[in-house]
Amino acid sequence: MNGARSLLTTLVDAGVDVCFANPGTSEMHFVAALDTVGGMRGVLTLFEGVATGAADGYARIAGTPAAVLLHLGPGLGNGLANLHNARRAHTPMVVVVGDHATYHKKYDAPLESDIDAVAGSVSGWVHRSLRPADIAADTMAALDAARRGVVSTLILPADVSWSDGAGPAPAASEPEEPAVDGDAVRAAAAALRSGERAVVLVGGDATRAPGLAAAVRIGEATGASVLCETFPARLERGAGVPAVERLAYFAEAAAEQLAGARHLVLAGAVSPVSFFAYPGKASDLVPDGCTVHVLASHRGAAAALEHLADELAPGSTPAVAPSTRPALPTGDLNAFAAATVIGALLPEGAIVVDESNTAGVGVAAATAGAPAHDVLTLTGGAIGYGIPAAVGAAIAAPDRPVVSLQADGSALYTISALWTQAREHLDVTTVIFDNGAYDILRIELQRVGATSGAEPGPKARELLDLGSPAMDFVQIAEGFGVPARRVRTAEELAAALADAFAEPGPHLIDAMVPSLLS
Amino acid sequence: MNGARSLLTTLVDAGVDVCFANPGTSEMHFVAALDTVGGMRGVLTLFEGVATGAADGYARIAGTPAAVLLHLGPGLGNGLANLHNARRAHTPMVVVVGDHATYHKKYDAPLESDIDAVAGSVSGWVHRSLRPADIAADTMAALDAARRGVVSTLILPADVSWSDGAGPAPAASEPEEPAVDGDAVRAAAAALRSGERAVVLVGGDATRAPGLAAAVRIGEATGASVLCETFPARLERGAGVPAVERLAYFAEAAAEQLAGARHLVLAGAVSPVSFFAYPGKASDLVPDGCTVHVLASHRGAAAALEHLADELAPGSTPAVAPSTRPALPTGDLNAFAAATVIGALLPEGAIVVDESNTAGVGVAAATAGAPAHDVLTLTGGAIGYGIPAAVGAAIAAPDRPVVSLQADGSALYTISALWTQAREHLDVTTVIFDNGAYDILRIELQRVGATSGAEPGPKARELLDLGSPAMDFVQIAEGFGVPARRVRTAEELAAALADAFAEPGPHLIDAMVPSLLS
Repeated sequence: MNGARSLLTTLVDAGVDVCFANPGTSEMHFVAALDTVGGMRGVLTLFEGVATGAADGYARIAGTPAAVLLHLGPGLGNGLANLHNARRAHTPMVVVVGDHATYHKKYDAPLESDIDAVAGSVSGWVHRSLRPADIAADTMAALDAARRGVVSTLILPADVSWSDGAGPAPAASEPEEPAVDGDAVRAAAAALRSGERAVVLVGGDATRAPGLAAAVRIGEATGASVLCETFPARLERGAGVPAVERLAYFAEAAAEQLAGARHLVLAGAVSPVSFFAYPGKASDLVPDGCTVHVLASHRGAAAALEHLADELAPGSTPAVAPSTRPALPTGDLNAFAAATVIGALLPEGAIVVDESNTAGVGVAAATAGAPAHDVLTLTGGAIGYGIPAAVGAAIAAPDRPVVSLQADGSALYTISALWTQAREHLDVTTVIFDNGAYDILRIELQRVGATSGAEPGPKARELLDLGSPAMDFVQIAEGFGVPARRVRTAEELAAALADAFAEPGPHLIDAMVPSLLS
Repeated sequence: MNGARSLLTTLVDAGVDVCFANPGTSEMHFVAALDTVGGMRGVLTLFEGVATGAADGYARIAGTPAAVLLHLGPGLGNGLANLHNARRAHTPMVVVVGDHATYHKKYDAPLESDIDAVAGSVSGWVHRSLRPADIAADTMAALDAARRGVVSTLILPADVSWSDGAGPAPAASEPEEPAVDGDAVRAAAAALRSGERAVVLVGGDATRAPGLAAAVRIGEATGASVLCETFPARLERGAGVPAVERLAYFAEAAAEQLAGARHLVLAGAVSPVSFFAYPGKASDLVPDGCTVHVLASHRGAAAALEHLADELAPGSTPAVAPSTRPALPTGDLNAFAAATVIGALLPEGAIVVDESNTAGVGVAAATAGAPAHDVLTLTGGAIGYGIPAAVGAAIAAPDRPVVSLQADGSALYTISALWTQAREHLDVTTVIFDNGAYDILRIELQRVGATSGAEPGPKARELLDLGSPAMDFVQIAEGFGVPARRVRTAEELAAALADAFAEPGPHLIDAMVPSLLS
């Protein structure tokens, strides 16, 4: 058995049966092995950032890693931004990067580059397989690491892929759940019983129903505020699910949510910091005089919260979000009207992939009482995540509707993911919030102006404008094989969403909304 | 003066007056400074790979570096593939990567990553500016390095950008041309006079008229074969220019070109190696028993060849390519007919950006006698280069028509570059060679099959197919604001090209050609 077949066999035997791929010549033996090793679904993407974003979306929903196949250093580079997001989401993923044959590297052929250095910047585990006999064990090691919540990168030289001599795989070791830290639970309990203002910040594996239920029980019993990290990897919410507010993106608003807290209990979340630094503003959002208590890191946070809830409020049951939908609005579309329409129509069991950025400001409120759904967010801030993640989520959960809320500027980084949606006939409804600008940057530029006292000039403003020429997302989507239409009113959006939800396969709706600044 | 203004002022004063940008929040002060510092043209791209590819195309034509503005590690990652190509082309470039404020980095905010490690994989010079007072000198150092033919990466923390205290710039040091190595010239001359079969392989700065003229004079005087490296950064060719054949991409064909050589003189080119390794095939393409003579590296190769030519053939004048055009073909389009049409109509002074890959197999022969033109090629093998490079070339030479020959698969990596072509009203005619497949990989898969004795299976073949669904490049281009049409016959292509060449601004022609394997 050659290395490629050994790799595929090991993955499939361990339950990894989807591979998002954008292969090249050095991966041809891996590609050829797809037909000799059964059980692996190869999903072609037109760009590596689509493959890595799709694998992230897949794993967040499936709970198990997907494989990704990339071509040498440049392919890894193209996939890097969404690997960065995956790293921040603690998404399990096995990235296979094909490389030149071991003996070929010294010739510094045109595609030679330092794959290891680039992979190291996003991977919790990096290894280069040097012999076919090692492949099975290396693959299991990659998988073991991935299952602990990291991006694992296995570099596969072409000759190791094509040469015979592969051996059997060692047994899989299911990762153990981290033990609950009794001392941390007791310390948090004491802080929460102190009567001083406290905030519980949940993240990691505590942002699904069990962890949220425990957190809300704690809040109800102690008066503590319960917040969710700003960009959870996967947040369960909607009717019947205990509701938590998310920590705000802008530091000023986050500081307000945390103001006066004397205790901050971190349950799967990291200590809150400003997304960016601003002149004269603090980076650390923990208020002065507030003690930070680390209850648990991203794995085991739900279990730790359950222990804490049982300590503080034994036998209690948390309040859950009521089932309420906003009425369908009418008239001209804007960001809030669009959000309201989405809240009114969000289908049962939806997966919402949210890269709507500034334009999505109204979505959380409008969907709070919609049927229970999962939200995947931009954990690492590297835009171009949404459309690819929707691909992966739809493959992981073919029976659930995927609603991809997408800012226009961010959509253009990985727009070809629409083609994979069409090719795989995925049930994804993409809503483009089309305001013709990098609105978040226009807001940031205003902040620069407010700081420096100088109004932004025409060159700066022009560099944040997407309206000249206006992009036609309907044509672009149809060019990639996804049916699309443009909407300018709430009624048109409602009709388009209803049609898209009713018909299987991908759809795109270009929702024309004015800039928040206009 | 703050760091951002110092950086811009230093660049503009040193003659760098174009910046290809895809900024984010951490670069807002740089963006704001575009209005306070005069003389810098900011060119917005929708994806960082477009910015880096455009800067590469710009510098190859302008001969001077452009600046590139990228947003943190993920922005650099998105730009990495085309920086890899630029590195292989020895393109001068100054990449400014905005980073978090110096004091903010320790908080590991979501966008924090190891920029230095990633930049190091493609840059000949990497530096992080730590004080506004250092910015001007750091910028000059970056520029000095760039002018020696490397990608320079200057990492600009946000607080260094926004804080005052910048100082004046040191004087520029124009890079000296490397001295001609007299020993190397004599050794090459002796080898070429030996009467044994010799090959002169030109590359680097010897692939423009002066270097080519010298190389051809040498060939005429000594009987040596003159070849050009497989992927020159910028090859001048066509009527009136001394003609050289390029070393073939496939190792078998290249081996044939070099067969029997006892001497290989490298003038700006590296010693030829196989682009990829293949089972049982040699990576090193230098024939057994052939001595390699390094005349010059990529800089100074033309000058060294001139010395050598004056030594071997004083006063001689080289033959040049005659002015000949193929007749316009008729009937159904295929890759060769398309090439013939292009050869018949290529406008005077064109810049041809060639990422046509397998489908462009007929282009070199068909355009050999067309009016003199420059060809930019895919130096590093990282696809997604062509459409961005055409942006940069058109900005560098607004009076020259740019003809962008583009394979369909590669086009999708950086397709949004079309929007920048429309926005800047660039005179670029893109011809998509639309065969609905990764044809190069289908060829490679056949080679795998030939090696292993197994026919490629359906899963493997499907992973190289772009036809399901078929992409509509006309809709995609028009969605980005570029007028487009589809052609299926030679007559239609000729008419579309004539129209595109006659009308200023960008155009795209979707040329439907069958796969070479069909």
